[in-house]
Amino acid sequence: MTTLLPRPVSFARGEGEFRGDPRPEVRLVAGEPEGYRLEITPERVLVEASDEAGAFWAEQTIRQLRGPDAFRAAPLRPGPAVLPACTVVDRPRFAWRGCMIDVARHFLPKHDLLRYVDLLAAHKLNVLHLHLTDDQGWRFEVKRYPALTEVGSWRPESRLGDRRGGLVNARPHGGFYTQDDLREVVAYAAQRHVTVVPEIDVPGHSQAAVAAYPALGLHGGGVWTDWGVNPRVLDVGPETLEFYRNVFDELVDVFPSTVIGLGGDEVPDQGPEHGAFVRALAAHLTGRGRRPYGWDEIAESGPLPHDVIIASWRGEEQGVAAVREGHDVVMCPEQHVYLDYRQSDLPSEPIPVGTVLGVEDVYRYSPVPPEITGDEPGRVLGAQANLWTEHVDSPRRLDYAAFPRLSAFAEVVWGTAGDPAFLDRLTTHHLPRLDALGVEYRPLAGPRPWQSLPGVPGFPR
Amino acid sequence: MTTLLPRPVSFARGEGEFRGDPRPEVRLVAGEPEGYRLEITPERVLVEASDEAGAFWAEQTIRQLRGPDAFRAAPLRPGPAVLPACTVVDRPRFAWRGCMIDVARHFLPKHDLLRYVDLLAAHKLNVLHLHLTDDQGWRFEVKRYPALTEVGSWRPESRLGDRRGGLVNARPHGGFYTQDDLREVVAYAAQRHVTVVPEIDVPGHSQAAVAAYPALGLHGGGVWTDWGVNPRVLDVGPETLEFYRNVFDELVDVFPSTVIGLGGDEVPDQGPEHGAFVRALAAHLTGRGRRPYGWDEIAESGPLPHDVIIASWRGEEQGVAAVREGHDVVMCPEQHVYLDYRQSDLPSEPIPVGTVLGVEDVYRYSPVPPEITGDEPGRVLGAQANLWTEHVDSPRRLDYAAFPRLSAFAEVVWGTAGDPAFLDRLTTHHLPRLDALGVEYRPLAGPRPWQSLPGVPGFPR
Repeated sequence: MTTLLPRPVSFARGEGEFRGDPRPEVRLVAGEPEGYRLEITPERVLVEASDEAGAFWAEQTIRQLRGPDAFRAAPLRPGPAVLPACTVVDRPRFAWRGCMIDVARHFLPKHDLLRYVDLLAAHKLNVLHLHLTDDQGWRFEVKRYPALTEVGSWRPESRLGDRRGGLVNARPHGGFYTQDDLREVVAYAAQRHVTVVPEIDVPGHSQAAVAAYPALGLHGGGVWTDWGVNPRVLDVGPETLEFYRNVFDELVDVFPSTVIGLGGDEVPDQGPEHGAFVRALAAHLTGRGRRPYGWDEIAESGPLPHDVIIASWRGEEQGVAAVREGHDVVMCPEQHVYLDYRQSDLPSEPIPVGTVLGVEDVYRYSPVPPEITGDEPGRVLGAQANLWTEHVDSPRRLDYAAFPRLSAFAEVVWGTAGDPAFLDRLTTHHLPRLDALGVEYRPLAGPRPWQSLPGVPGFPR
Repeated sequence: MTTLLPRPVSFARGEGEFRGDPRPEVRLVAGEPEGYRLEITPERVLVEASDEAGAFWAEQTIRQLRGPDAFRAAPLRPGPAVLPACTVVDRPRFAWRGCMIDVARHFLPKHDLLRYVDLLAAHKLNVLHLHLTDDQGWRFEVKRYPALTEVGSWRPESRLGDRRGGLVNARPHGGFYTQDDLREVVAYAAQRHVTVVPEIDVPGHSQAAVAAYPALGLHGGGVWTDWGVNPRVLDVGPETLEFYRNVFDELVDVFPSTVIGLGGDEVPDQGPEHGAFVRALAAHLTGRGRRPYGWDEIAESGPLPHDVIIASWRGEEQGVAAVREGHDVVMCPEQHVYLDYRQSDLPSEPIPVGTVLGVEDVYRYSPVPPEITGDEPGRVLGAQANLWTEHVDSPRRLDYAAFPRLSAFAEVVWGTAGDPAFLDRLTTHHLPRLDALGVEYRPLAGPRPWQSLPGVPGFPR
């Protein structure tokens, strides 16, 4: 039994302790991607890593071995680092260990986004999927179309809680990232071996763009102030296609990620022309040397090129079908990894929506459904947890929604979940690390008094 | 003319540029406290500093000379740093260059507080005064009295805007720092030559403590949910004094600052017993080797020991009187440096309170009133800007209130204000630095649409 999270593939305690500078000697050796072997003796700290990423994950392991205060921004007390002598052999099962953050429904300031990069890296998660646009806001500066952020980046009010409750938050909300802001996030993440995968969502979830450029839509209207599936979608004619080709050209100029998201979810009255629009943009991205990435609906409106990656969110069967069709798939079924869903059935749970999804429920999730045998033409690349933010309007509330469920997810996707002592390890060793990091996670017993939102309606399922 | 802010004492452009690693060679030489001489030639970057702080301020100057992108968390593009050849000779006029943040009315998460340490340091400000307790919340963990944070750190609702508007924000609010959290902030700040000066406010502004331990007060009641001067103050008997001696003992154990704040402002029906209570706590701090620091009212309720430092907030005359009485004084008159006051008379200004205090008004402030000749027994140590947070309920709103006025204040207190081209220098060179830092400052032309708060009542004077 170790204190580490995610649990490594193997851990063997040695004799004695190392005291001194915890920075390891690093050797690059042949091995599996992102793998490492860490050997700590009283004399030295040695890392043999397959690649730079493996060496970086080894450093995260070393930090965990030092104790919670190693996660603070400055040392509380003088003295050398103390590490237990041990040997850790480790590698991830999945190459895609992701978290999606919806910065469209509620904007997350850049410095908070950088903090989330650090939090993902500390959990050996390696993909940050940024949902940059939606009906309620456009967050990506496009130099050719400045109104996208001038008009589309803010709304005068918002729905407060679930729409069926009829409440309104009268406070304006807005914000956007400049292209240089996002280049900075990409560079910061790359230093931590996290890939930032951007998404511009089309042809639904596009009302903020229509608000800025009404010709893109059929029905006009401002940046949407409600939540839910919006009946207004893009007018997917040739001019709109040209517009979005230009938008995606600026997007790929900022984001070096091979994988680029184009959305495709929740299109009411979806017709062949919507599928053709998505396929045309997918082809455009392929022509730019990128791999298109879309929500699972895009596999249902006509034949897709096999290089398109599918995010299986409505359930697992969509992912199974896509793998059988020859697509690579990222699993993110809402039933298991939607971190906006309520964490318990306590009445004190803030804005309870969706099904109950506690930390143990997330821990029980397994990214490869049993129907997949490995003989399919496509592959399961991994999984990602999705943080939708209709009801998450501040970084403090994001901490509450994300943690500690994202800690459980990290172990799921590293591939070492199934430890019956996980909750004890989480409670005894990992929550103190989150405390040291200043993460305002949900306590396992329920929300703190100021984490509740009495009177704000949810819609539990 | 330079691009720097605060403007240095002298700047001379040299010939050519330095390209390479911008970390300077540092030599410690005799000189005035915090002073430095920076010499950049095409061959080298040399700093001669009087002390470690001077060397650190020189590094901030170098960062400014590199251009705005030097303030990003990761480099946008590869390549060496480019610095103009120049000679800078510099030193601060005042030893106390402070900013007070009220983390009691609205809690500021630890990572946001650390970010503010960085922002102060980038402006060569060197004192962070933390207002840790007030009627509306207690933010400092006291191990002997756990209910101070268990009960006193949250409130079920808050007044929304000025109390005379009658609106309520029904969202619970709370949070607190553990002692280790604050040790971390202190250590992080010390690395940046910023001293953290804590304040526990007595005998007024204490309703959160009374909520936790009703015997401390005369009238009971919960954590206050309104703003303003609270008629309920401490029952300043011997048991309350003993309680606070214990509280301050834990405070000085966490904060190494010589100066420790004990409040003393806005005590309704102030009587001699309130003055005696403050003096007894001041003596207790002196006995612990610290210098008590209080708001200017404490100089009016009986004779104070001369080692007590006075914060002159109601105006300048209180500071003048205290200096004549032999006290050291920190100037922070509300008319000039209260950064919660409205920044313009635009109707779009969010929750406009107080008098208009624009960036140019702050820039015109001078910390030493003309009545002070220098022959008084006390001294003006410097000044601090105060960020009260009744109407500042998030880090984004704090950015709006603080910047760019705090940038103007930094030049005032460095002692080099009076540059007619200040606004041009701010606009052309410094706002891009704030953009790179992700500071959501108030644009000089007025708030962005999402920075307004229509319908939330203020109370302009």
